[in-house]
Amino acid sequence: MRSHRTQGPLPTFYHFYPGVPAVVGVRLGERVNFCPAVWNTGLSADPPLFGVALSPKRFTHGLLLEARRYSASFHPHTQAPLVQHLGSVSGREVYKGKTPHFLGHTGVPILEGAYAAYELELLAVHSFGDHDLFVGRVVAVWEEEGLLDEAGRPRPGLALLYYGRGLYGRPAEEAFRP
Amino acid sequence: MRSHRTQGPLPTFYHFYPGVPAVVGVRLGERVNFCPAVWNTGLSADPPLFGVALSPKRFTHGLLLEARRYSASFHPHTQAPLVQHLGSVSGREVYKGKTPHFLGHTGVPILEGAYAAYELELLAVHSFGDHDLFVGRVVAVWEEEGLLDEAGRPRPGLALLYYGRGLYGRPAEEAFRP
Repeated sequence: MRSHRTQGPLPTFYHFYPGVPAVVGVRLGERVNFCPAVWNTGLSADPPLFGVALSPKRFTHGLLLEARRYSASFHPHTQAPLVQHLGSVSGREVYKGKTPHFLGHTGVPILEGAYAAYELELLAVHSFGDHDLFVGRVVAVWEEEGLLDEAGRPRPGLALLYYGRGLYGRPAEEAFRP
Repeated sequence: MRSHRTQGPLPTFYHFYPGVPAVVGVRLGERVNFCPAVWNTGLSADPPLFGVALSPKRFTHGLLLEARRYSASFHPHTQAPLVQHLGSVSGREVYKGKTPHFLGHTGVPILEGAYAAYELELLAVHSFGDHDLFVGRVVAVWEEEGLLDEAGRPRPGLALLYYGRGLYGRPAEEAFRP
Protein backbone atom coordinates (compact mmCIF):
# COMPACT_ATOMS: atom_id res chain seq x y z
CA MET A 1 0.00 0.00 0.00
CA ARG A 2 1.38 3.40 -0.86
CA SER A 3 0.87 6.27 1.54
CA HIS A 4 1.57 9.94 1.83
CA ARG A 5 1.18 12.52 4.52
CA THR A 6 -0.92 15.45 3.50
CA GLN A 7 -1.07 19.18 3.92
CA GLY A 8 -3.62 21.26 2.07
CA PRO A 9 -5.94 19.68 -0.52
CA LEU A 10 -5.47 16.07 -1.59
CA PRO A 11 -4.66 15.09 -5.19
CA THR A 12 -7.98 13.20 -5.07
CA PHE A 13 -10.65 13.03 -2.39
CA TYR A 14 -12.91 10.26 -3.69
CA HIS A 15 -11.78 7.28 -1.62
CA PHE A 16 -15.05 7.20 0.33
CA TYR A 17 -17.18 7.25 -2.82
CA PRO A 18 -19.56 6.10 -4.30
CA GLY A 19 -22.39 7.85 -2.52
CA VAL A 20 -26.10 8.33 -3.05
CA PRO A 21 -26.66 11.95 -4.08
CA ALA A 22 -29.45 13.85 -2.34
CA VAL A 23 -31.18 16.26 -4.67
CA VAL A 24 -31.78 19.41 -2.64
CA GLY A 25 -34.91 21.32 -3.64
CA VAL A 26 -35.61 24.85 -2.47
CA ARG A 27 -38.10 27.57 -3.28
CA LEU A 28 -37.71 31.23 -2.49
CA GLY A 29 -40.71 33.26 -3.56
CA GLU A 30 -41.37 32.15 -7.14
CA ARG A 31 -37.83 30.88 -7.63
CA VAL A 32 -37.36 27.10 -7.50
CA ASN A 33 -33.97 25.40 -7.62
CA PHE A 34 -32.58 21.86 -7.46
CA CYS A 35 -29.03 20.75 -6.88
CA PRO A 36 -27.54 17.33 -6.11
CA ALA A 37 -25.23 16.93 -3.11
CA VAL A 38 -23.31 13.71 -2.58
CA TRP A 39 -21.77 14.90 0.69
CA ASN A 40 -24.75 13.99 2.82
CA THR A 41 -25.33 11.80 5.86
CA GLY A 42 -27.69 10.94 8.65
CA LEU A 43 -26.80 12.88 11.79
CA SER A 44 -29.39 11.76 14.33
CA ALA A 45 -32.21 9.21 14.53
CA ASP A 46 -34.24 10.88 17.31
CA PRO A 47 -34.91 13.60 16.35
CA PRO A 48 -34.33 12.63 12.70
CA LEU A 49 -31.62 14.96 11.41
CA PHE A 50 -30.09 14.84 7.95
CA GLY A 51 -26.97 16.73 6.93
CA VAL A 52 -25.91 18.11 3.56
CA ALA A 53 -22.55 19.82 2.97
CA LEU A 54 -22.58 22.59 0.36
CA SER A 55 -19.96 24.99 -0.87
CA PRO A 56 -20.80 28.68 -0.32
CA LYS A 57 -20.08 29.06 -4.04
CA ARG A 58 -23.22 27.12 -4.87
CA PHE A 59 -26.32 29.11 -5.72
CA THR A 60 -28.36 26.73 -3.56
CA HIS A 61 -26.29 27.68 -0.51
CA GLY A 62 -27.69 31.20 -0.34
CA LEU A 63 -31.23 30.05 -1.15
CA LEU A 64 -31.19 27.57 1.75
CA LEU A 65 -30.01 30.20 4.20
CA GLU A 66 -32.94 32.39 3.23
CA ALA A 67 -35.67 29.81 2.71
CA ARG A 68 -34.70 27.62 5.69
CA ARG A 69 -36.99 24.90 4.31
CA TYR A 70 -35.90 22.46 1.64
CA SER A 71 -36.25 18.93 0.38
CA ALA A 72 -33.75 16.12 -0.07
CA SER A 73 -34.85 13.47 -2.55
CA PHE A 74 -33.33 10.16 -3.62
CA HIS A 75 -33.57 8.97 -7.19
CA PRO A 76 -33.26 5.80 -9.26
CA HIS A 77 -30.16 5.38 -11.40
CA THR A 78 -32.30 5.83 -14.49
CA GLN A 79 -32.51 9.52 -13.56
CA ALA A 80 -28.72 9.94 -13.74
CA PRO A 81 -28.91 12.24 -16.81
CA LEU A 82 -31.26 14.61 -14.99
CA VAL A 83 -29.21 14.59 -11.78
CA GLN A 84 -26.00 15.15 -13.73
CA HIS A 85 -27.63 18.05 -15.56
CA LEU A 86 -28.86 19.62 -12.31
CA GLY A 87 -25.36 19.32 -10.89
CA SER A 88 -23.52 20.73 -13.88
CA VAL A 89 -25.37 24.01 -14.33
CA SER A 90 -25.84 26.70 -11.73
CA GLY A 91 -29.21 28.16 -10.81
CA ARG A 92 -27.54 31.53 -11.33
CA GLU A 93 -27.30 30.90 -15.07
CA VAL A 94 -30.08 28.42 -15.79
CA TYR A 95 -33.56 28.38 -14.32
CA LYS A 96 -34.07 24.82 -13.06
CA GLY A 97 -37.53 25.41 -11.63
CA LYS A 98 -39.25 24.07 -14.75
CA THR A 99 -37.96 20.59 -13.99
CA PRO A 100 -41.03 18.49 -13.09
CA HIS A 101 -41.65 18.66 -9.36
CA PHE A 102 -44.39 18.91 -6.79
CA LEU A 103 -44.74 20.85 -3.55
CA GLY A 104 -44.64 19.09 -0.20
CA HIS A 105 -46.65 19.73 2.96
CA THR A 106 -44.33 22.58 3.90
CA GLY A 107 -44.28 24.10 0.42
CA VAL A 108 -40.83 22.83 -0.52
CA PRO A 109 -40.33 21.63 -4.11
CA ILE A 110 -39.59 17.91 -4.53
CA LEU A 111 -38.12 16.64 -7.79
CA GLU A 112 -40.36 14.13 -9.59
CA GLY A 113 -39.26 10.52 -9.89
CA ALA A 114 -37.78 10.01 -6.43
CA TYR A 115 -38.32 6.75 -4.55
CA ALA A 116 -38.13 8.72 -1.30
CA ALA A 117 -37.81 12.30 -0.15
CA TYR A 118 -37.55 14.31 3.04
CA GLU A 119 -38.94 17.71 3.83
CA LEU A 120 -36.45 19.47 6.05
CA GLU A 121 -36.37 22.47 8.32
CA LEU A 122 -33.00 24.10 8.74
CA LEU A 123 -31.80 23.68 12.31
CA ALA A 124 -28.19 24.81 12.11
CA VAL A 125 -25.38 25.61 9.70
CA HIS A 126 -21.77 24.82 10.57
CA SER A 127 -18.77 25.90 8.53
CA PHE A 128 -16.11 23.26 8.05
CA GLY A 129 -13.25 24.28 5.79
CA ASP A 130 -14.55 25.21 2.34
CA HIS A 131 -18.07 23.79 2.83
CA ASP A 132 -20.98 24.45 5.17
CA LEU A 133 -22.98 21.64 6.72
CA PHE A 134 -26.72 22.25 6.63
CA VAL A 135 -28.37 20.34 9.44
CA GLY A 136 -32.04 19.73 8.71
CA ARG A 137 -34.79 18.23 10.79
CA VAL A 138 -36.99 15.79 8.86
CA VAL A 139 -40.53 17.11 9.18
CA ALA A 140 -42.17 14.97 6.48
CA VAL A 141 -41.31 11.82 4.53
CA TRP A 142 -42.40 10.79 1.02
CA GLU A 143 -42.14 7.16 -0.04
CA GLU A 144 -42.83 5.35 -3.31
CA GLU A 145 -44.01 2.15 -1.68
CA GLY A 146 -43.35 -0.28 -4.49
CA LEU A 147 -39.72 0.80 -4.76
CA LEU A 148 -38.80 0.44 -1.09
CA ASP A 149 -38.46 -2.65 1.04
CA GLU A 150 -40.17 -3.17 4.39
CA ALA A 151 -37.43 -1.14 6.13
CA GLY A 152 -37.90 1.83 3.80
CA ARG A 153 -34.70 1.13 1.87
CA PRO A 154 -34.45 1.41 -1.90
CA ARG A 155 -34.52 -2.06 -3.39
CA PRO A 156 -31.04 -3.32 -4.34
CA GLY A 157 -30.22 -2.28 -7.90
CA LEU A 158 -32.38 0.85 -7.77
CA ALA A 159 -30.39 3.70 -6.22
CA LEU A 160 -28.21 6.12 -8.08
CA LEU A 161 -24.57 6.05 -7.01
CA TYR A 162 -22.16 8.88 -7.71
CA TYR A 163 -18.43 8.27 -8.11
CA GLY A 164 -17.45 11.91 -8.61
CA ARG A 165 -16.32 13.79 -11.73
CA GLY A 166 -19.44 12.96 -13.72
CA LEU A 167 -19.25 9.18 -13.22
CA TYR A 168 -22.32 7.30 -12.00
CA GLY A 169 -23.30 3.76 -11.16
CA ARG A 170 -25.87 1.71 -9.32
CA PRO A 171 -25.81 -1.03 -6.69
CA ALA A 172 -25.77 -4.66 -7.76
CA GLU A 173 -29.16 -6.42 -7.72
CA GLU A 174 -28.16 -8.78 -4.92
CA ALA A 175 -27.90 -7.84 -1.27
CA PHE A 176 -26.70 -10.25 1.38
CA ARG A 177 -26.40 -10.89 5.08
CA PRO A 178 -22.84 -11.95 5.84
CA MET B 1 -46.50 8.49 -3.36
CA ARG B 2 -47.50 8.18 0.23
CA SER B 3 -46.35 10.78 2.71
CA HIS B 4 -46.52 11.56 6.38
CA ARG B 5 -45.50 14.44 8.56
CA THR B 6 -43.17 13.45 11.33
CA GLN B 7 -42.49 14.25 14.93
CA GLY B 8 -39.91 12.34 16.89
CA PRO B 9 -38.13 9.31 15.40
CA LEU B 10 -39.21 7.92 12.03
CA PRO B 11 -40.54 4.38 11.59
CA THR B 12 -37.52 3.87 9.33
CA PHE B 13 -34.58 6.14 8.51
CA TYR B 14 -32.88 4.27 5.68
CA HIS B 15 -34.14 6.14 2.63
CA PHE B 16 -30.71 7.63 1.94
CA TYR B 17 -28.96 4.25 2.11
CA PRO B 18 -26.95 2.36 0.90
CA GLY B 19 -23.72 3.93 2.07
CA VAL B 20 -20.07 2.96 2.18
CA PRO B 21 -19.16 2.26 5.81
CA ALA B 22 -15.96 3.81 7.14
CA VAL B 23 -14.22 1.55 9.61
CA VAL B 24 -12.98 3.79 12.40
CA GLY B 25 -9.76 2.59 14.04
CA VAL B 26 -8.48 4.05 17.29
CA ARG B 27 -5.77 3.22 19.79
CA LEU B 28 -5.58 4.45 23.35
CA GLY B 29 -2.47 3.21 25.10
CA GLU B 30 -2.42 -0.51 24.40
CA ARG B 31 -6.11 -0.66 23.61
CA VAL B 32 -7.04 -0.89 19.92
CA ASN B 33 -10.61 -0.76 18.65
CA PHE B 34 -12.43 -0.80 15.31
CA CYS B 35 -16.02 0.13 14.56
CA PRO B 36 -17.83 0.72 11.26
CA ALA B 37 -19.81 3.93 10.77
CA VAL B 38 -22.06 4.36 7.75
CA TRP B 39 -23.04 7.91 8.70
CA ASN B 40 -19.98 9.52 7.21
CA THR B 41 -19.34 12.21 4.62
CA GLY B 42 -16.80 14.56 3.14
CA LEU B 43 -17.05 17.98 4.77
CA SER B 44 -14.35 20.03 3.04
CA ALA B 45 -11.89 19.59 0.19
CA ASP B 46 -9.35 22.24 1.26
CA PRO B 47 -8.45 21.51 3.97
CA PRO B 48 -9.58 17.88 3.53
CA LEU B 49 -12.09 17.20 6.30
CA PHE B 50 -14.02 13.98 6.78
CA GLY B 51 -16.96 13.58 9.15
CA VAL B 52 -18.21 10.54 11.05
CA ALA B 53 -21.38 10.59 13.18
CA LEU B 54 -21.28 8.30 16.22
CA SER B 55 -23.69 7.69 19.06
CA PRO B 56 -22.30 8.53 22.51
CA LYS B 57 -23.40 4.99 23.44
CA ARG B 58 -20.66 3.56 21.26
CA PHE B 59 -17.43 2.52 22.96
CA THR B 60 -15.50 4.13 20.11
CA HIS B 61 -17.06 7.51 20.91
CA GLY B 62 -15.19 7.86 24.22
CA LEU B 63 -11.96 6.49 22.76
CA LEU B 64 -11.98 9.08 19.97
CA LEU B 65 -12.52 11.93 22.39
CA GLU B 66 -9.45 10.83 24.33
CA ALA B 67 -7.17 9.69 21.54
CA ARG B 68 -8.08 12.53 19.12
CA ARG B 69 -6.31 10.56 16.37
CA TYR B 70 -8.02 7.82 14.40
CA SER B 71 -8.29 6.15 11.03
CA ALA B 72 -11.17 5.73 8.60
CA SER B 73 -10.72 2.86 6.16
CA PHE B 74 -12.78 1.66 3.22
CA HIS B 75 -13.11 -2.02 2.44
CA PRO B 76 -14.07 -4.35 -0.40
CA HIS B 77 -17.43 -6.10 -0.19
CA THR B 78 -15.61 -9.38 0.40
CA GLN B 79 -14.83 -8.11 3.90
CA ALA B 80 -18.52 -7.75 4.76
CA PRO B 81 -18.40 -10.54 7.38
CA LEU B 82 -15.57 -8.81 9.23
CA VAL B 83 -17.20 -5.38 9.05
CA GLN B 84 -20.52 -6.81 10.21
CA HIS B 85 -18.75 -8.54 13.11
CA LEU B 86 -16.96 -5.32 14.12
CA GLY B 87 -20.27 -3.50 14.06
CA SER B 88 -22.25 -6.05 16.03
CA VAL B 89 -20.05 -6.39 19.11
CA SER B 90 -18.93 -3.60 21.41
CA GLY B 91 -15.31 -2.97 22.33
CA ARG B 92 -16.58 -2.89 25.89
CA GLU B 93 -17.32 -6.61 25.76
CA VAL B 94 -15.01 -7.97 23.08
CA TYR B 95 -11.43 -6.97 22.45
CA LYS B 96 -11.24 -6.18 18.74
CA GLY B 97 -7.58 -5.17 18.75
CA LYS B 98 -6.43 -8.61 17.59
CA THR B 99 -8.07 -8.05 14.22
CA PRO B 100 -5.22 -7.80 11.69
CA HIS B 101 -4.13 -4.19 11.32
CA PHE B 102 -1.09 -1.98 10.94
CA LEU B 103 -0.14 1.37 12.41
CA GLY B 104 -0.07 4.51 10.28
CA HIS B 105 2.35 7.42 10.27
CA THR B 106 0.53 8.96 13.25
CA GLY B 107 0.31 5.69 15.17
CA VAL B 108 -3.38 5.08 14.44
CA PRO B 109 -4.44 1.48 13.76
CA ILE B 110 -5.71 0.76 10.23
CA LEU B 111 -7.70 -2.39 9.54
CA GLU B 112 -6.02 -4.72 7.03
CA GLY B 113 -7.62 -5.26 3.63
CA ALA B 114 -8.73 -1.71 2.88
CA TYR B 115 -8.41 -0.29 -0.62
CA ALA B 116 -7.97 3.16 0.94
CA ALA B 117 -7.67 4.72 4.38
CA TYR B 118 -7.31 8.11 5.99
CA GLU B 119 -5.40 9.06 9.09
CA LEU B 120 -7.36 11.77 10.86
CA GLU B 121 -6.78 14.34 13.54
CA LEU B 122 -9.84 15.38 15.47
CA LEU B 123 -10.65 19.00 14.76
CA ALA B 124 -14.10 19.39 16.32
CA VAL B 125 -17.04 17.47 17.74
CA HIS B 126 -20.59 18.71 17.26
CA SER B 127 -23.65 17.21 18.93
CA PHE B 128 -26.67 16.80 16.68
CA GLY B 129 -29.61 15.05 18.31
CA ASP B 130 -28.61 11.58 19.49
CA HIS B 131 -25.26 11.47 17.63
CA ASP B 132 -22.04 13.45 17.66
CA LEU B 133 -20.27 14.42 14.46
CA PHE B 134 -16.51 13.91 14.64
CA VAL B 135 -14.81 16.27 12.22
CA GLY B 136 -11.37 15.00 11.29
CA ARG B 137 -8.61 16.53 9.24
CA VAL B 138 -7.00 14.08 6.80
CA VAL B 139 -3.28 14.07 7.66
CA ALA B 140 -2.28 10.97 5.69
CA VAL B 141 -3.76 8.82 2.92
CA TRP B 142 -3.22 5.12 2.21
CA GLU B 143 -4.07 3.71 -1.21
CA GLU B 144 -4.02 0.23 -2.68
CA GLU B 145 -3.08 1.33 -6.18
CA GLY B 146 -4.36 -1.64 -8.14
CA LEU B 147 -7.84 -1.29 -6.63
CA LEU B 148 -8.35 2.40 -7.32
CA ASP B 149 -8.85 4.22 -10.59
CA GLU B 150 -6.86 7.26 -11.72
CA ALA B 151 -9.08 9.53 -9.60
CA GLY B 152 -8.49 7.49 -6.45
CA ARG B 153 -11.96 5.94 -6.53
CA PRO B 154 -12.62 2.28 -5.77
CA ARG B 155 -13.17 0.43 -9.03
CA PRO B 156 -16.87 -0.18 -9.73
CA GLY B 157 -17.96 -3.48 -8.19
CA LEU B 158 -15.41 -3.30 -5.37
CA ALA B 159 -16.81 -1.22 -2.51
CA LEU B 160 -18.87 -2.51 0.36
CA LEU B 161 -22.34 -0.99 0.58
CA TYR B 162 -24.42 -1.07 3.74
CA TYR B 163 -28.22 -1.02 3.62
CA GLY B 164 -28.76 -1.02 7.40
CA ARG B 165 -29.99 -3.74 9.76
CA GLY B 166 -27.25 -6.19 8.81
CA LEU B 167 -27.88 -6.07 5.05
CA TYR B 168 -24.95 -5.46 2.69
CA GLY B 169 -24.37 -5.15 -1.01
CA ARG B 170 -21.90 -3.87 -3.56
CA PRO B 171 -21.99 -1.58 -6.58
CA ALA B 172 -22.63 -3.02 -10.02
CA GLU B 173 -19.53 -3.60 -12.15
CA GLU B 174 -20.50 -0.95 -14.69
CA ALA B 175 -20.21 2.76 -14.19
CA PHE B 176 -21.40 5.27 -16.75
CA ARG B 177 -21.35 8.89 -17.81
CA PRO B 178 -24.90 10.00 -18.54
